[in-house]
Amino acid sequence: MRATLMYSAGDVRIENVPDARITEPTDALVRITRASICGSDLWPYNQLEPTETGRRMGHEFIGVVEAAGADVRTVKTGDVVVAPFAWSDGTCVFCQEGLQTSCLHGGWWGRDGIDGGQGEAVRVPQADGTLVVLPVAEDDALMPSLLTLSDVMATGHHAALAARVGPGRTAAVVGDGAVGLCGVIAARRLGAERIIVLGRHPGRIALATEFGATDVVSERGDEAVERVRELTNGLGAHSVLECVGHDLSVETALGIVRPGGAVGRVGLPQHEQIPTTTATFFDNVNIAGGPAPARAYIEEFLPDVLEGNIEPGRVFDRVIGLEEVPDGYRAMNDREAIKVMIDF
Amino acid sequence: MRATLMYSAGDVRIENVPDARITEPTDALVRITRASICGSDLWPYNQLEPTETGRRMGHEFIGVVEAAGADVRTVKTGDVVVAPFAWSDGTCVFCQEGLQTSCLHGGWWGRDGIDGGQGEAVRVPQADGTLVVLPVAEDDALMPSLLTLSDVMATGHHAALAARVGPGRTAAVVGDGAVGLCGVIAARRLGAERIIVLGRHPGRIALATEFGATDVVSERGDEAVERVRELTNGLGAHSVLECVGHDLSVETALGIVRPGGAVGRVGLPQHEQIPTTTATFFDNVNIAGGPAPARAYIEEFLPDVLEGNIEPGRVFDRVIGLEEVPDGYRAMNDREAIKVMIDF
Repeated sequence: MRATLMYSAGDVRIENVPDARITEPTDALVRITRASICGSDLWPYNQLEPTETGRRMGHEFIGVVEAAGADVRTVKTGDVVVAPFAWSDGTCVFCQEGLQTSCLHGGWWGRDGIDGGQGEAVRVPQADGTLVVLPVAEDDALMPSLLTLSDVMATGHHAALAARVGPGRTAAVVGDGAVGLCGVIAARRLGAERIIVLGRHPGRIALATEFGATDVVSERGDEAVERVRELTNGLGAHSVLECVGHDLSVETALGIVRPGGAVGRVGLPQHEQIPTTTATFFDNVNIAGGPAPARAYIEEFLPDVLEGNIEPGRVFDRVIGLEEVPDGYRAMNDREAIKVMIDF
Repeated sequence: MRATLMYSAGDVRIENVPDARITEPTDALVRITRASICGSDLWPYNQLEPTETGRRMGHEFIGVVEAAGADVRTVKTGDVVVAPFAWSDGTCVFCQEGLQTSCLHGGWWGRDGIDGGQGEAVRVPQADGTLVVLPVAEDDALMPSLLTLSDVMATGHHAALAARVGPGRTAAVVGDGAVGLCGVIAARRLGAERIIVLGRHPGRIALATEFGATDVVSERGDEAVERVRELTNGLGAHSVLECVGHDLSVETALGIVRPGGAVGRVGLPQHEQIPTTTATFFDNVNIAGGPAPARAYIEEFLPDVLEGNIEPGRVFDRVIGLEEVPDGYRAMNDREAIKVMIDF
């Protein structure tokens, strides 16, 4: 089958790999119908050290079950399914607590011999714990929005939860990428009174406004901090969604949060230490977040997507075929595209 | 009047200073009857750069109101009162939210011309917002426990809240100082199923056990992390109370917290950056805490202290007079005493 491999920074290839197939009774074999490129895929796209074997890529996908192992109970051949960006058994203590990204028997797509999502098919380990059946046909018009439940919409929601967004609160979203845009959707859905988006790309800002952003701050660094403080009577935002992961964006997030407020960080941190200041301590700022347990949120979001209450699929502004994936990486990296969908 | 001043690291003196007196209609004048030395006083005791004017010291005290300004409504001459370690107006947006340490019109004892608590009397700004009347006489036997409500018991409680202690959860307390010991009391009071204390001083550990600690870890650094993981089926503690503030103790706290768990930090951080690792992000660890809004907790704790349900005053293992305060600092710094009370 054909699949995406990355061999070093900037070197993405579509190659023949061994066909995905069931090896464990808890596996399902899924033929992929839609997949996407994630902002986090751009980190290795910029930094990956050369590897001779290549790294299998992709962790956001929807597909059709082609076969299910003997122990699989919740999905069957022909089901249209969405997978979260981490696979999990659904039964361990962390899965029970809704933190499937810490599953004791789970893992990540494209690692440790598991297929990546940017390919024709995937062996899904722990299929019962991992997959969610979608009550739609594989070519449903809602596919873009449904696909965001695998990662980007779940991640925006996780940022909003970690930042304690709620009615009457002011949320600030750092970053106008696809996650930031979904963070705006999530903040509005959770009842934020005011949603300030920090970004400067006109098309993305326009979409953020359609999604519910009430204020736009296009400054960066200290000027952005100053501007958000002006907008909030000098107090800062109750809830800050950090959707980038750079030191500068984390510093900005910590700079605009109100005393007693919370920063929900979902941008993959590019450094180990949190670049905080003593003000973070004296202001009793809460720092939370991490990889979103998307599996915990998919069922909660399905009704809103199916009823059209939210349209996170609008973050996809380019659709390509599998063989065009290398150019899809380039387009996202050059900020030509917000987010790229792969239609098989 | 006599009061405590610090002129440089290790140089604590009791000197004559101008008598405290009312200057604003919202002030009260309080004659101090009990005060104490705080672990945080030891930071300047070890590090203060020489200052010619000296720094007024002390922020934990109980006293009797000698006079109240014209606008003061909630306290009157003769009332026995306890003050939290930060003064606050009680009316601003942060006070209303229970975060009095961020009061827009508040401040800290011993700074900006405000008296310190280790002296014969104090001008209390914003008396209505700051002071809590105690329904006891000034020589009540419960004075030691009531005095802890000004800081150390409130701080232990704040750590426990920030660490999300609750029924069924395992709490770990990093540090066996007075705050850590009060953290044990708070964790038990909030229903923690298991309370692991990290410390090695026999007398303090014995007291922690009496306060409700169920397990003791006397190792330090990586060995402590290993030991806590052994005690928690390899998972870590749900709630970690960081009651020291050193880089090593923060690293230990972040090393022993369970995925999805929370670290409540109340130890005054000695460095700006949080010495975290990427695991903190991937494990969705919550980092919270800061200076405790003691004012928000005093009334909640009063019944438990008055009824003898908790005895935080047992952290005081030495009582001295005001003139002996310099030796009190030495005794605490040498770890001869857990915590020193000043009886006037």
